[in-house]
Amino acid sequence: MLIDKVIEKCRELDSCLIVGIDPVFEKLPEDVRSAALKKYGETETAFASAFVSFGQSVIDAVEGISCIVKPQLAYFEAFGAAGVGAYAEIVRYAKLKGFFVIADAKRGDIGSTSAAYARAFLGDSSLSADFVTVNPYLGSDCINEFLKLVDERDKGIFILVKTSNQSSSELQDLEVGGKKIYEILGVRVNEAARARTGKYGYSQVGAVVGATYPGELATLRSKMECTPFLVPGYGAQGGTAADIAAAFDAQGLGAYINSSRGIIYAKDEGAGYADAMRRAAIKARDDIRTIGR
Amino acid sequence: MLIDKVIEKCRELDSCLIVGIDPVFEKLPEDVRSAALKKYGETETAFASAFVSFGQSVIDAVEGISCIVKPQLAYFEAFGAAGVGAYAEIVRYAKLKGFFVIADAKRGDIGSTSAAYARAFLGDSSLSADFVTVNPYLGSDCINEFLKLVDERDKGIFILVKTSNQSSSELQDLEVGGKKIYEILGVRVNEAARARTGKYGYSQVGAVVGATYPGELATLRSKMECTPFLVPGYGAQGGTAADIAAAFDAQGLGAYINSSRGIIYAKDEGAGYADAMRRAAIKARDDIRTIGR
Repeated sequence: MLIDKVIEKCRELDSCLIVGIDPVFEKLPEDVRSAALKKYGETETAFASAFVSFGQSVIDAVEGISCIVKPQLAYFEAFGAAGVGAYAEIVRYAKLKGFFVIADAKRGDIGSTSAAYARAFLGDSSLSADFVTVNPYLGSDCINEFLKLVDERDKGIFILVKTSNQSSSELQDLEVGGKKIYEILGVRVNEAARARTGKYGYSQVGAVVGATYPGELATLRSKMECTPFLVPGYGAQGGTAADIAAAFDAQGLGAYINSSRGIIYAKDEGAGYADAMRRAAIKARDDIRTIGR
Repeated sequence: MLIDKVIEKCRELDSCLIVGIDPVFEKLPEDVRSAALKKYGETETAFASAFVSFGQSVIDAVEGISCIVKPQLAYFEAFGAAGVGAYAEIVRYAKLKGFFVIADAKRGDIGSTSAAYARAFLGDSSLSADFVTVNPYLGSDCINEFLKLVDERDKGIFILVKTSNQSSSELQDLEVGGKKIYEILGVRVNEAARARTGKYGYSQVGAVVGATYPGELATLRSKMECTPFLVPGYGAQGGTAADIAAAFDAQGLGAYINSSRGIIYAKDEGAGYADAMRRAAIKARDDIRTIGR
């Protein structure tokens, strides 16, 4: 099962770090930007081509330090179909290099439409990854369409439960009969997860739970015993290793910690940006290693 | 303001019908499918090319009957970057023909990432439409990034409030202090809407409220006096003209009724599929005309 392979590979590298690929053109290394602009002018093709070359250099830089990358679709869609093509190219390259890929797309729609999104990100399309993030606002007929492909094609999903942003409390923390919305959803996600566990007790169905809310992380860990957590918010968003400790179980399993900006835009102090990214990834891995495995 | 132009154009046509473009390859007319497969083989390019030609024929067929089209991103993404390119091509064609375009993308993420989605669908990208649908699960820092472009570029959004699918009740109908989640969100959406109203009292900020829940439609209409409703669920999903009556105000304003499958896959009874689509669109328009304007 996919989740077992992820656990084994993470154990092999002693790293549960996810490297988020969020390309923002203005922040890319000067040589990547100028090469693309020189070749294609100021077009979406230029931005997309810079993203491919940057994404590949991220993957090369973190090889052996992390085995999971998480391209964020928004940054690619911002440059149209060419941008989406760059995302596909990065997914292809990451797979070739033996990485697991989480498509951070936060999709969700009514049943028949969700089936099309599931096809896009877990099915036969050129955008297909190993995992996709899913938004729960539309309920189970949305989620079930993704679960079909999780089961048929040995794929995984991470459902948004408690997100890392400041305003996540506005809806997710509302209280229904003494329970917060994120707790209610967490328990529901864990039920879907339970039917899909592998040999280490964790499921192909996971949850997104932000590092910026350590108390909520602990509550959810205690109620979601077989649900792996994708934990954003570590690093640039302010979450520390101490904050994410509660995301792991007693064996140090059950969580994958994402860092995007903190790694891919690490300060190049003379040795080149690839080296800066690798050093930042090592630092993040080691920091997280003190807690999870 | 965009919303005023929409109201005026709908008044001119005496039609508040939105035609949803949800292309499913297997359901396309035989000649469209075979032309694409013959030219490109069984590739994403072939599917995308069929979608462009089909989407354009939908737009041609409903010209003068409806002034708003709503391509659904999921069906395009299911065929990768080529599919997304087909979406862009259809948006371009629709604008050229004077239609308003709602990108049905249901996007939403943390602030910085939402800004990238806003750029994609309301900004400078080739995917940019007039309106985009937005998922509220992440709260206001997500929504605010879209609102920036609504204000700066005279665009609009429709925020999911009460969706048309069966399982929408699972989260949206939970009760917090005697109020349903969709009511709480509806009131919040209306507050954002109030700051952005045009000369007819309606806002650039709208809400998605399903035709399949007429009671909820009525409740929300009474609490959201300046929020235009995008109403899915009419037609193929089971909503009738009587069901949508409550979406309109006393002047017959405030709602746009979507029909996708009921029009674009209308039964061709010998006169050709374009004719079938046009007849189905006229029928839907006239049915809705008995109520809204």
